[in-house]
Amino acid sequence: MSGQEDKIESINKNPAAKNIIGVFDSGLGGLTILKYFLKNLSGYNYIYLGDNARLPYGEKSPETIYNYTREAVAFLFSAGCNLIIIACNTASAQALRRLQQEYLPSAYPHRKILGVIRPLVEAIAKNPKIKAVGVIGTKATINSNAYKSELEKLRPELRIEQQSAPLIVPLIEEGWAHKPETKMILKKYLRPLKTKSIDALILGCTHYSFLYKEIRAIMGRRIPVPQAGEIIALSLADYLVRHGELGLTTVATPTYKFYTTDDIRLFKELGEKFLGREIKNLERVKISEL
Amino acid sequence: MSGQEDKIESINKNPAAKNIIGVFDSGLGGLTILKYFLKNLSGYNYIYLGDNARLPYGEKSPETIYNYTREAVAFLFSAGCNLIIIACNTASAQALRRLQQEYLPSAYPHRKILGVIRPLVEAIAKNPKIKAVGVIGTKATINSNAYKSELEKLRPELRIEQQSAPLIVPLIEEGWAHKPETKMILKKYLRPLKTKSIDALILGCTHYSFLYKEIRAIMGRRIPVPQAGEIIALSLADYLVRHGELGLTTVATPTYKFYTTDDIRLFKELGEKFLGREIKNLERVKISEL
Repeated sequence: MSGQEDKIESINKNPAAKNIIGVFDSGLGGLTILKYFLKNLSGYNYIYLGDNARLPYGEKSPETIYNYTREAVAFLFSAGCNLIIIACNTASAQALRRLQQEYLPSAYPHRKILGVIRPLVEAIAKNPKIKAVGVIGTKATINSNAYKSELEKLRPELRIEQQSAPLIVPLIEEGWAHKPETKMILKKYLRPLKTKSIDALILGCTHYSFLYKEIRAIMGRRIPVPQAGEIIALSLADYLVRHGELGLTTVATPTYKFYTTDDIRLFKELGEKFLGREIKNLERVKISEL
Repeated sequence: MSGQEDKIESINKNPAAKNIIGVFDSGLGGLTILKYFLKNLSGYNYIYLGDNARLPYGEKSPETIYNYTREAVAFLFSAGCNLIIIACNTASAQALRRLQQEYLPSAYPHRKILGVIRPLVEAIAKNPKIKAVGVIGTKATINSNAYKSELEKLRPELRIEQQSAPLIVPLIEEGWAHKPETKMILKKYLRPLKTKSIDALILGCTHYSFLYKEIRAIMGRRIPVPQAGEIIALSLADYLVRHGELGLTTVATPTYKFYTTDDIRLFKELGEKFLGREIKNLERVKISEL
């Protein structure tokens, strides 16, 4: 344990940050978030890391999710990132707070970690018409109560209805997003939320955005379903403006670099669909021994 | 790489085998095989290892599956196993042959590794009425062509029809084995095999035995579907008789020990359903740094 901490320690003191924004996900889902960053904040350097060899995180224990996320974060900082966005809801829910406490700004002024839960929660909380919110996510995200507790901090009177939906990720990764079986399973997950008359639905997993239309069709057009990618990109833009001390600036020829812990071909194949553009600068990496 | 090999080397020369049979699986599926061992060969000592922290293996790359399986095997040998059964079809398909070459009997007389594919293949091959065989499994198992090439070795004239069925494992782990959605998805996977008029169906993944009745109902009672657990237990019994040199013997009070790489509670909860009995002697273990 202390050996691991020593290593993280030395990584953090070691190479100077290189003006790069890191984006981490357990697999490919975070590419749907990076897509919005590249659309709205294309002038920055990015490194994306997908831990495909160990995905999915959604059904694993809090301790394992924390350990894996810690290794990912250590890797991205050692690769020169000034700021890391944990684009995976499960990792944000189960590991972000502990990691933020390990990388305190006082000790690591150029090592900042953000998650994807807070921006969505803020977007919901500032709409006074919303009195009841539904949340769907992986088992680990729902069990963590991360959305629930963040929402309650900002709006204690909100009614929050949660539902885990573990089959959605495998269905999307099988390429079955638009098959009738997927619609049936989605209905099964969403029906309990619908009967509880919620005023908005949070998609607490990046994969679910692939079923955006289907989800809206089931829930009814009256129920707003915030687009996570858009909201998180707006929130990042705002954050960058307020945190000049991180040293992140746009550059004339930004580089977008990709790492995966599993096979490159597998990553590229589905990843380009998720990102909506070609993935060029891609390398396989081992992060478990950092 | 060579550091890793050195470590495996020293582990193998190191502790004497302790008269234990090791059973490895990526998660809980192998418990359905161990169940038959404990029924038919209950007098031996067993250690079961589930790599739950990194499951599922079925959609990962061959290299990653090999690396993870190698770590598992090194752990089980270091824990005193004389013989290891790789109860996971994906790991058997993608890693067994390479590992058998690394642990050659000449160098390691008390370090033997077996898989689950060969026994099933032999059971099919010895039935002359079978002219065409269907195989369902994970993507990695099907892509490896392990069943196909083993079947062709014994019966070159066999027609073999393969189908990957990646959603079945998540459906079972969600506890949805008997829901109508699962039946629909199963039909979608099996229909192409049915139309190709096969004479037998191999369930190339331990999880699928939970849908045994449903699969037989879809395929029709005419199509034999061998029970993997039973066949593998018979094959192990036969193997133990023929390989006295391994030093495996029954003992008066056998111990059954369980290890998981993830949370103990998660393992126990579903694991007891898979094994059909209480899981007592259970410990969490880290195998990735061996």
